[in-house]
Amino acid sequence: LNRRLAEFGTTIFAEMSALAVRTGAINLGQGFPDTDGPEEVREAAVRALRDGRGNQYPPGPGVPELRAAVAAHQERHYGLSYDPDREVLVTAGATEAIAASLLALVEPGDEVIALEPYYDSYAASIALAGGTRVPVTLRPGEGPGGGAADRRFVLDLDELRAAVTPRTRLLLLNTPHNPTGTVLTREELAAIAELAVERDLLVVTDEVYEHLVFTDEVTPAHLPLASFPGMRERTVTIGSAGKTFSFTGWKVGWVTSTPELVTAVRSAKQYLTFVASGPFQYAVAEALALPESYFTGIREDLRAKRDLLSAGLTAAGFEVYRPQGTYFITTDIRPLGEDRSHGGDGFAFCRALPERAGVVAIPNAVFYDHRDAGAPFVRFAFCKRTEVLADAVERLKAL
Amino acid sequence: LNRRLAEFGTTIFAEMSALAVRTGAINLGQGFPDTDGPEEVREAAVRALRDGRGNQYPPGPGVPELRAAVAAHQERHYGLSYDPDREVLVTAGATEAIAASLLALVEPGDEVIALEPYYDSYAASIALAGGTRVPVTLRPGEGPGGGAADRRFVLDLDELRAAVTPRTRLLLLNTPHNPTGTVLTREELAAIAELAVERDLLVVTDEVYEHLVFTDEVTPAHLPLASFPGMRERTVTIGSAGKTFSFTGWKVGWVTSTPELVTAVRSAKQYLTFVASGPFQYAVAEALALPESYFTGIREDLRAKRDLLSAGLTAAGFEVYRPQGTYFITTDIRPLGEDRSHGGDGFAFCRALPERAGVVAIPNAVFYDHRDAGAPFVRFAFCKRTEVLADAVERLKAL
Ligand SMILES: CSCCC(=O)C(=O)O
Ligand SMILES: CSCCC(=O)C(=O)O
Repeated sequence: LNRRLAEFGTTIFAEMSALAVRTGAINLGQGFPDTDGPEEVREAAVRALRDGRGNQYPPGPGVPELRAAVAAHQERHYGLSYDPDREVLVTAGATEAIAASLLALVEPGDEVIALEPYYDSYAASIALAGGTRVPVTLRPGEGPGGGAADRRFVLDLDELRAAVTPRTRLLLLNTPHNPTGTVLTREELAAIAELAVERDLLVVTDEVYEHLVFTDEVTPAHLPLASFPGMRERTVTIGSAGKTFSFTGWKVGWVTSTPELVTAVRSAKQYLTFVASGPFQYAVAEALALPESYFTGIREDLRAKRDLLSAGLTAAGFEVYRPQGTYFITTDIRPLGEDRSHGGDGFAFCRALPERAGVVAIPNAVFYDHRDAGAPFVRFAFCKRTEVLADAVERLKAL
Repeated sequence: LNRRLAEFGTTIFAEMSALAVRTGAINLGQGFPDTDGPEEVREAAVRALRDGRGNQYPPGPGVPELRAAVAAHQERHYGLSYDPDREVLVTAGATEAIAASLLALVEPGDEVIALEPYYDSYAASIALAGGTRVPVTLRPGEGPGGGAADRRFVLDLDELRAAVTPRTRLLLLNTPHNPTGTVLTREELAAIAELAVERDLLVVTDEVYEHLVFTDEVTPAHLPLASFPGMRERTVTIGSAGKTFSFTGWKVGWVTSTPELVTAVRSAKQYLTFVASGPFQYAVAEALALPESYFTGIREDLRAKRDLLSAGLTAAGFEVYRPQGTYFITTDIRPLGEDRSHGGDGFAFCRALPERAGVVAIPNAVFYDHRDAGAPFVRFAFCKRTEVLADAVERLKAL
C-alpha cells in the first residue's frame, strides 16, 4: 500500500457496518436511511432503464437533463445561477466530487485547511493529492440561543485566520457539518468569505446536507458559501442526491463552480470513474424538480427523528449536542460515568456498544487529527424509522 | 489544475463524442453499444430497485451476491478460485479499478510499464499516483497465421524485458488490447509471467474485453494472466460488466486478487467513490450467471460486426488490422493517399472526418507517448447495429 495512504486503513463505516451485521445490532453508524426515497423518483429510474436512457455511457459532464436540473435547483433555492453546460459537473456522489476537486486543485506541498472533525475521505483525498492538511477544530460551545438545548460545536474564526499561511491553497468547508450537526451562521460564513477573498484562497464546500436543516429561531437556515460576496468565482460547491432524496446507493453528486474550476475538476474526475450512475442521473433530474412540499417534508420528518433521538439519548445519560442539520447527533459520553463510558474513550465505547447494548455508533475521534480532542464524542445517526430509533433508545437506556 | 494532470486535458472520448453530437455524424469513436444488453438483466435491475436492494449504500467491498457471482465466474470460465469475501472488490467500472489500483500500489517515483498504445486513463492514473510511465510499444506486424488478414500489433518481448529496471514496480497489462484488438497469446503471456516472477513485479491486468474475443484457428482464446504460474499471487485482475453485458452506463467493475492486494486497492477505492451502482450490482450478479449461450452469442454477434466493418474499411481503402478481440478496429490511413489521409496524420484526419464523411473515429496517436509512432492509425468501434455499420461503410467509401 502506497505510503500516502498508509494511515488510512478501512473507513470506520466499513468496520462499524461489519460489526452491525455480525452482532445484529441496530446500526446508527453510517448515514443512510432505512426507508427509500419517493416512489415517483424510483419509478423515474425504472422508466429511464426501460427507455434506454443512461444504460450506455452518459456524457462526461453528466446528462444535460441533470445538469439543467442542478442549475435550476441552485437558482430556485439560493438565487445562484450556473450555466448548465459549463458550470455543472455530475459525479459519482459527493465522495468522487471531493477526491476529484482535491486531486485537481491541490499541488504537492499545498496546505489545505479543513474543519475538524471531518468526514474521513477529506483527509485521504488531501493525502492522495500530496497536500498537507491543516485542521481547524470546532469546539463544544454555546449555541446562538445560549441554552443547553442549543449547545453546538463552534468554529473559532481567529483560529481559522491564524491557520492560513502563504502555502494555504484551499479551504475545505462542510456545512451543515458532519459529524457535529453544526450549521454555519450567516456571520460565520461572511467572515470565512472575507478571509478567503483577502487571502485569495480557493474554497471547496461540501453542502450535501443542504436540505436537512432544522431551522427555528436559533438555528440558521442553510446558506451556500457561494452566495457570499466574492465567493461565486472561487468556490467549488458539492451537492448530492443521496441524502436529499434518500437514495444513497445511487451515488449521484455534482459540482457547481466557474467554467475554469469545473474544467479542472472534470480533468481529474474523468480518470476516477469516467462517468457513473447512467439511468439514475435522469431520475435525480426529476427529483430535483419536486415541489417545495417534498423538501419541507423530509426536513420535518428528520426534525422529528432528531428530537426523538436527542431526547432519548439525554434520558439515557448522554450529553447531547442537538444538531442543527445533517443525519447525526454528536454526544459526549462522559456523563455516563466511568464504568459506562469506558473512561470517556469513544473508541472503546463504540467497539463494546454492539455487544453491550445492541447499538452501533461512530467514535468521533476518527474524524480528528488530534484524537484526544475527539475522544469523548460519539455520533448516532437518526435517519432511521421511528420504531427503530425508539428501540435503540430503550436499549441505550438499559445500558 | 494540478501540474501532474496538466498534460491530461479532456479525454479524446469527450471531445469526439461532442463532435459527433454537433455534426450528427455516426459515432464510431467511443466504445459503447447502441443496443442495450439483455432485457432479463435490465429487469433484474428493475426488481432490485423496486425491492429496495442497493438503493442505500451497498457494503464497501460490494454486495455479497455480486462478489460471489464474480468468484463463480472466474471459476467457471478459467478455473481460478477467489474467496468472495476477501479476494473480490466491486468498483465503479474498470476506470475506478485502474485508478484505485495504481493509487494504492504505486509510490511516487516508481516506474510503471504499460503497453503502448494505451487506454488514456492509464497514463492519468499513473501520473496521479506520482509514478513514471514506461511505455512498451506494440508494433504492426504479422499475426500467428502470417497472412494479411492476420496482421496484428505485436508485443516485442525483448523490448518488454529491456524496459524493466530496478525501479519498476508494476506492469500494467491489457488483453484483449484496446485500441489495437490484439489478444496476447499463451506464449506471450507465459513470457510476461516469467518476467514478472523473475523481476518480482506486481501486475495489474485490465481484461474487460475478456468475452469479446473472436477465436478461430489463428486467434488465441482469452487467457487471464492470473492463470499462469506464479501470477495468481502478484496479479490484480480487472473485469467489468459494461462490455460483456452491453450496459456501459451502469459502471459495475471488479478487481480479483489476493486478500492483501484487494485490501490495498480497497483502501484507495473507498475514498474515490466510497461505493457505487447499488441496484446494478444485483443485476450484474444475475447477468454473470447467464448460460454459456449468452457469452457465445455476444461473441458471435460482435464477430459478424467486426467482419462487416473490417471488409468495409478495406473496401474504402484503409489498411485494416482485423482485431482478435475488443470493440475496435485499428486502421492505417496512409493507403488512402495523401489528399484523403491528411498526409497520414490521424489527428487531422479524425478532426475532419465528421464533416467530410459523417463518421467519428479516434486517432490512436492519443494513446501514445511517442505520438509519431501512432500518427497514421485510426480506430473505429464496431459495437453498433449492423445498419449503422453499413451506413458508415457507405459514407467512408464515398470519401
Ligand atoms: C459515504 S459515507 C458519507 C457520510 C456518511 O454517510 C457518514 O458520515 O456516515
Ligand atoms: C470509459 S471509456 C472505456 C474505453 C472505451 O470505451 C474506449 O476506448 O472507447
